[in-house]
Amino acid sequence: MKKILVLNSGSSSLKYQLFNVENDKYEMIAKGVADRIGINGSVVEIKFPDGTKRKREVALPTHNEAINEVISELLNGALTSMNEIDAVGHRIVQGGDIFKHSVLVTEEVINQIEGLAELAPLHNHAHVLGIRAVEKLLPDVPQTVVFDTAFHQTMPKEAFLYALPLEQYTKHKIRRYGFHGTSHAYVSEKAAELIGKKGKIITCHLGNGASISAIDNGICLDTSMGFTPLAGLVMGTRCGDIDPYIPLYICKSQNKTPDEVNEILNKRSGMFGLCGYSDNRDVETLYGVEEKATVAMDTYVHSIIRFIGAYVAVLGGVDAIVFTAGIGENGALLRRLVIEKLAYLGIILDEKANEKRGAITEISAPGSKVRAFIIPTDEEYMIAKDTMKVVFGE
Amino acid sequence: MKKILVLNSGSSSLKYQLFNVENDKYEMIAKGVADRIGINGSVVEIKFPDGTKRKREVALPTHNEAINEVISELLNGALTSMNEIDAVGHRIVQGGDIFKHSVLVTEEVINQIEGLAELAPLHNHAHVLGIRAVEKLLPDVPQTVVFDTAFHQTMPKEAFLYALPLEQYTKHKIRRYGFHGTSHAYVSEKAAELIGKKGKIITCHLGNGASISAIDNGICLDTSMGFTPLAGLVMGTRCGDIDPYIPLYICKSQNKTPDEVNEILNKRSGMFGLCGYSDNRDVETLYGVEEKATVAMDTYVHSIIRFIGAYVAVLGGVDAIVFTAGIGENGALLRRLVIEKLAYLGIILDEKANEKRGAITEISAPGSKVRAFIIPTDEEYMIAKDTMKVVFGE
Repeated sequence: MKKILVLNSGSSSLKYQLFNVENDKYEMIAKGVADRIGINGSVVEIKFPDGTKRKREVALPTHNEAINEVISELLNGALTSMNEIDAVGHRIVQGGDIFKHSVLVTEEVINQIEGLAELAPLHNHAHVLGIRAVEKLLPDVPQTVVFDTAFHQTMPKEAFLYALPLEQYTKHKIRRYGFHGTSHAYVSEKAAELIGKKGKIITCHLGNGASISAIDNGICLDTSMGFTPLAGLVMGTRCGDIDPYIPLYICKSQNKTPDEVNEILNKRSGMFGLCGYSDNRDVETLYGVEEKATVAMDTYVHSIIRFIGAYVAVLGGVDAIVFTAGIGENGALLRRLVIEKLAYLGIILDEKANEKRGAITEISAPGSKVRAFIIPTDEEYMIAKDTMKVVFGE
Repeated sequence: MKKILVLNSGSSSLKYQLFNVENDKYEMIAKGVADRIGINGSVVEIKFPDGTKRKREVALPTHNEAINEVISELLNGALTSMNEIDAVGHRIVQGGDIFKHSVLVTEEVINQIEGLAELAPLHNHAHVLGIRAVEKLLPDVPQTVVFDTAFHQTMPKEAFLYALPLEQYTKHKIRRYGFHGTSHAYVSEKAAELIGKKGKIITCHLGNGASISAIDNGICLDTSMGFTPLAGLVMGTRCGDIDPYIPLYICKSQNKTPDEVNEILNKRSGMFGLCGYSDNRDVETLYGVEEKATVAMDTYVHSIIRFIGAYVAVLGGVDAIVFTAGIGENGALLRRLVIEKLAYLGIILDEKANEKRGAITEISAPGSKVRAFIIPTDEEYMIAKDTMKVVFGE
């Protein structure tokens, strides 16, 4: 029996889940967040599988206090001693082209993650703060790092290269990395089990951030996010792919700095920019009722259809399409609109199954040439599993 | 019998073709260019259908002298009097969402074209210079304008809207316009004749600039170029679609102005950026021989495959795929690589036919589920034809 702590360390928050692992069975014992690190009004929260939860205001000037308070909470109901923690697994957003798999944390690995911070300034620095805080409190506990980008490192050059001057790749590291890799890996493995073969699978991770991947025989061949998580699909507040002249045009014609334009593209665009709602539940409720919401949803669906079609071509066919993450798992209208547009693939929707939520569900009808599934994602489980493998070889 | 002069007026050049039109038959009598307008060493050239040509150095300080010299050349072998010119048709790059069809030139139309110059500063101003020069020399000759964007005006909102704050569209006119419309219209009409129905057609205009369109029953539903001709496919020197954060990142991290970055993305990217060759003939020769050229070609093919796949989804199937423009008409290797990747559609290449060039050719083999064609484009013919229709109702 092992206890694995999974951490997702952001610049002002530290999300955590504690797993009990026994005979390849992963049981979540507690989870929560230490929030508003370095800001007034910081809190630490814990939730237990039985639904009970606690929330406590406490000063969290740095990630060190945050991890201390998380452990304190865990010692009240989830752990009897902090020595019970066997390993810690961290989610890391940007692994560049250095990390193709999860690895054990060493000084060299920390330096490499810091070195990649230029490519993901908001994330990688914060991840290292989390690693250092654990190092300080639990110096003898092995730590691993699990990268959002690693699963996509199998993409061939023609899929990850941008047609820019080559030194933008060789010298400046500008290429497609892709993100949500842990989620795409998890749901594609589950889908492969469900269809009984590795096959050709298109995974749609549709949350506030969203990406689609093309996976052939377990190998990622293409993905919609790019150099950063701004690219690809229409998202909650992000624009996804647009004419690359537009950011420059807005700088010039609206007299804005690159940072201001980036703020517009990341925070004020997407569904929010088109209709004022970034929450898909609002958009689904207003579809067909309010024109802006209807147009926004149609634009979102169109961007998904384009990518699914593109990836059917990249894969040379498709066996299964998977929907996951908040919208993928709960957006019944969105899934219906997408699958209806894919009728040319011989895919048939099971309308009743499509209304379900919260569990693995096949939403394609018998006789459908392509199978479609809702598969709830579980990135924390994947991080715990990779940590077990890296630290204990299990 | 009518004589129609077709003009394509750029900032420093004026291309022309003179057509003789009789009983719906269009015969090109002469064509050429007045080049280096406003620059030292300017020339005027003329070519005749029999292959003879002339070239003459002459001062061309403005578009007025350029049109004068073009007429002078035409009077030496193609026209006996400039009064023989019945109408002039101009190619206009940007018609915004104002112009859905070709129209007769009026003061209001000129003002509207000028008003759209913000969206295409290099082009629309020059087009107006061409119109004004003709007006001065041939005040009584009717002129028409034919827009690169008009054919794409049928795109539905979900295809032309970007997921940006809505005022970027409503106030700043930022949306997908699409270009090469005259070419997509021409080759899709020809393809419809060849397959005996309007059907679902994907047209690949692959020149130094390149775009792909999805056309259903004669109506354009989507196209790969966007707000500007920078978007979409990998091109000769243009990057096509990239993560929209990249232009801003290059501004910031490489300390460049938006204009400098635009120059990189438009002039130093694409095939040229990846391998040093912007001419597809060089790339085809070096494919499999030189690594950079091979990777560049694979990246180009991948970008085409993604769009064709996306548009099969947008159309809900495909009846015919058309290749046109310099590379589309002559790049036998490129066509083969693309069609081989599309085997999942049931498309079968006729390898022998694929080696032909210069004429309408079916390159799909008997039994192919999707038909594929080389159709040489003829934008000047389309402009002449639209001019005949607008001016003479023929």
